[in-house]
Amino acid sequence: MSASDATLRAWAYLSRVAEPPRPDLAALVERFGPIEAAQRIRCGAVDPKLAKHTETRREIDRTTGDLELLARRGGRLITPDDDEWPSRAFAAFGAASGKKRDCRPPLVLWALGPARLDETAGRAVAIIGTRAATAYGEMVAADLAAGLAEREMAVISGGSYGIDGAAHRGALASDGTTVAVLAGGIDISSPAGHSALLYRIGQHGLLVTEYPPGFRPLGYRFLTRNRLVAALARATVVVEAGLRSGTANTVGWARLLGRPVAAVPGPVTSAASAGCHVLLRAGAALVTRAEEVIELAGRIGELAADPPRPATPLDGLSVVQRQVYEALPGRGAVTVDQIAVACGLAPAQVFGPLAILEVAGLVQRRDGSWGTSATTATVPKPISR
Amino acid sequence: MSASDATLRAWAYLSRVAEPPRPDLAALVERFGPIEAAQRIRCGAVDPKLAKHTETRREIDRTTGDLELLARRGGRLITPDDDEWPSRAFAAFGAASGKKRDCRPPLVLWALGPARLDETAGRAVAIIGTRAATAYGEMVAADLAAGLAEREMAVISGGSYGIDGAAHRGALASDGTTVAVLAGGIDISSPAGHSALLYRIGQHGLLVTEYPPGFRPLGYRFLTRNRLVAALARATVVVEAGLRSGTANTVGWARLLGRPVAAVPGPVTSAASAGCHVLLRAGAALVTRAEEVIELAGRIGELAADPPRPATPLDGLSVVQRQVYEALPGRGAVTVDQIAVACGLAPAQVFGPLAILEVAGLVQRRDGSWGTSATTATVPKPISR
Repeated sequence: MSASDATLRAWAYLSRVAEPPRPDLAALVERFGPIEAAQRIRCGAVDPKLAKHTETRREIDRTTGDLELLARRGGRLITPDDDEWPSRAFAAFGAASGKKRDCRPPLVLWALGPARLDETAGRAVAIIGTRAATAYGEMVAADLAAGLAEREMAVISGGSYGIDGAAHRGALASDGTTVAVLAGGIDISSPAGHSALLYRIGQHGLLVTEYPPGFRPLGYRFLTRNRLVAALARATVVVEAGLRSGTANTVGWARLLGRPVAAVPGPVTSAASAGCHVLLRAGAALVTRAEEVIELAGRIGELAADPPRPATPLDGLSVVQRQVYEALPGRGAVTVDQIAVACGLAPAQVFGPLAILEVAGLVQRRDGSWGTSATTATVPKPISR
Repeated sequence: MSASDATLRAWAYLSRVAEPPRPDLAALVERFGPIEAAQRIRCGAVDPKLAKHTETRREIDRTTGDLELLARRGGRLITPDDDEWPSRAFAAFGAASGKKRDCRPPLVLWALGPARLDETAGRAVAIIGTRAATAYGEMVAADLAAGLAEREMAVISGGSYGIDGAAHRGALASDGTTVAVLAGGIDISSPAGHSALLYRIGQHGLLVTEYPPGFRPLGYRFLTRNRLVAALARATVVVEAGLRSGTANTVGWARLLGRPVAAVPGPVTSAASAGCHVLLRAGAALVTRAEEVIELAGRIGELAADPPRPATPLDGLSVVQRQVYEALPGRGAVTVDQIAVACGLAPAQVFGPLAILEVAGLVQRRDGSWGTSATTATVPKPISR
């Protein structure tokens, strides 16, 4: 590794101390380097806003354990100082940074697997889609991935059930390179049913995440993760997506980053293809086989219009409200301090969002603790991809 | 009827005397009116080229029988002098006439059914596709047609098996107006299995053709007929089409006439949707339901590029060679005179094309008669729609 032990420890600490992406933290590291940036955060000697956002976690130092776990599994921390850092792929964040608050590269990446990230990103296509895939969708995803692998392209996806899993499997079956970008720590096999698949990806391809070990894949982390799926791929292909699919989020990132977006058509009678048809009507490229995807990945284009997306009670939430809402457990109730730790905010920052969520009927107070309200059990959490 | 008996008889004669469309015949009628034009052709007092093309049929006068048959069935001859003539729909031929030799309105139309053609054309959509449709394609065609009918739109198609039939049936099932544009005489139920369907269309909608009674629907007549399907519709929707489908011909006409073209997507694993996906990749609008078709039919647009189409031995033939080839029976052999009558050319004009077809291995001479060669039995005649 090119970084010294102290530098690596600093990067690992910084990776855990705030919920990414944080432009102010990135700026701090940019200015002082990782070691001094970490020291400044540790003693609260930073801008008040950043101090507030690192308050809850700044004294938690799991660096040794994190790096030991990573070493034990044969993984590595990829930092911007490494040759493997995919600078070219991430350059798109800089070009688009004015367009969206969190349009930022990751601080560091926790990685496991033999594939080299910078080289892989240069020849990768993202194949994404709904977890509720049909047999048709899974077959097409696997076929496309196999076809791309046979043509020396790498396949990036999110490791989820449905289309993601089929795409990873298709690439593995053709001895191709496949990358799963995770929304939680590299030690968390999520979804649980994919632990064997994720193990194989870590053995033959690459598992990569901006979250340190132990981090659970929560809803907003999927959304943040999606920007890396889009950024690491030359083009993004949606194989199946319902009208409310989380793929719309990844597609939005791809468009923002100037990456071509394609969709596979399906029967107009299939709800699992409805999102693809909306994308195609909005200007996404129609692809039916690997050759057409490769042709597209060579060009850089942009979609014409934003596809419409039905509203849910959660759509109106701010980023922080959503972060708080998703830090709540599915069942039972937790204290404000527990929520603060789970979502990486100061306890004082959690009260306001909780009050708004309570008024909106999304959360309930129970004996001083907080839980999601019974009524929202019917609202599908758009954890999506 | 607005035309006198003599005028009607002249139109009926002109409709039979040459294979449409003939710009020189149209120009003759334009100059002298139908009665004098018919007289001039009868005695050969016309331009040598037109004289040659009307030589074989000019002495055959079936006018009385044709008009009696039409009257007996309750049909009518719609001429450019009639209020019902769809002048607005046919105006597109004038605008595009420089682009293609046979880009011409019909001379007259033989019609049967209660729907009024000019009014129907103003609110019609063509739903077309392969005869080898899947259950999915037939369902979607019927659904689209029913949805259009429920929204006061008329459905135009070609009366064939597969998508055409499903579209007509869907419109009829919703008590909508449907028009079948035939490639043969109004008395010829083709395909035979659709005689009941065609009867119902003639009872509730409209059967229309530029061919006089008794004319068989031959391959080149389907191609000529296709321009009327495209011209009479505000937009053309392809529901299913293989890569070699004849729908490409109708789509070409729609584009030439400046009418929007749409296609319905399907599984990428279905050969019956492959032609639709080629069209969509070439810029056709993707539609999934009736509302989207109506939205499109309101606008006038053009496709970006010509969709690629695989070559067949018949693709390289000239119009006349093709006319001669398709005048040959599927089995057995016929004389040059019989071929000449069948395709409306002078016997002298048939020899040249026959020789070329023989060299190309497409036809064979047998004891002074001509038939298609055994080898071409494997070449599917692109009779298409």
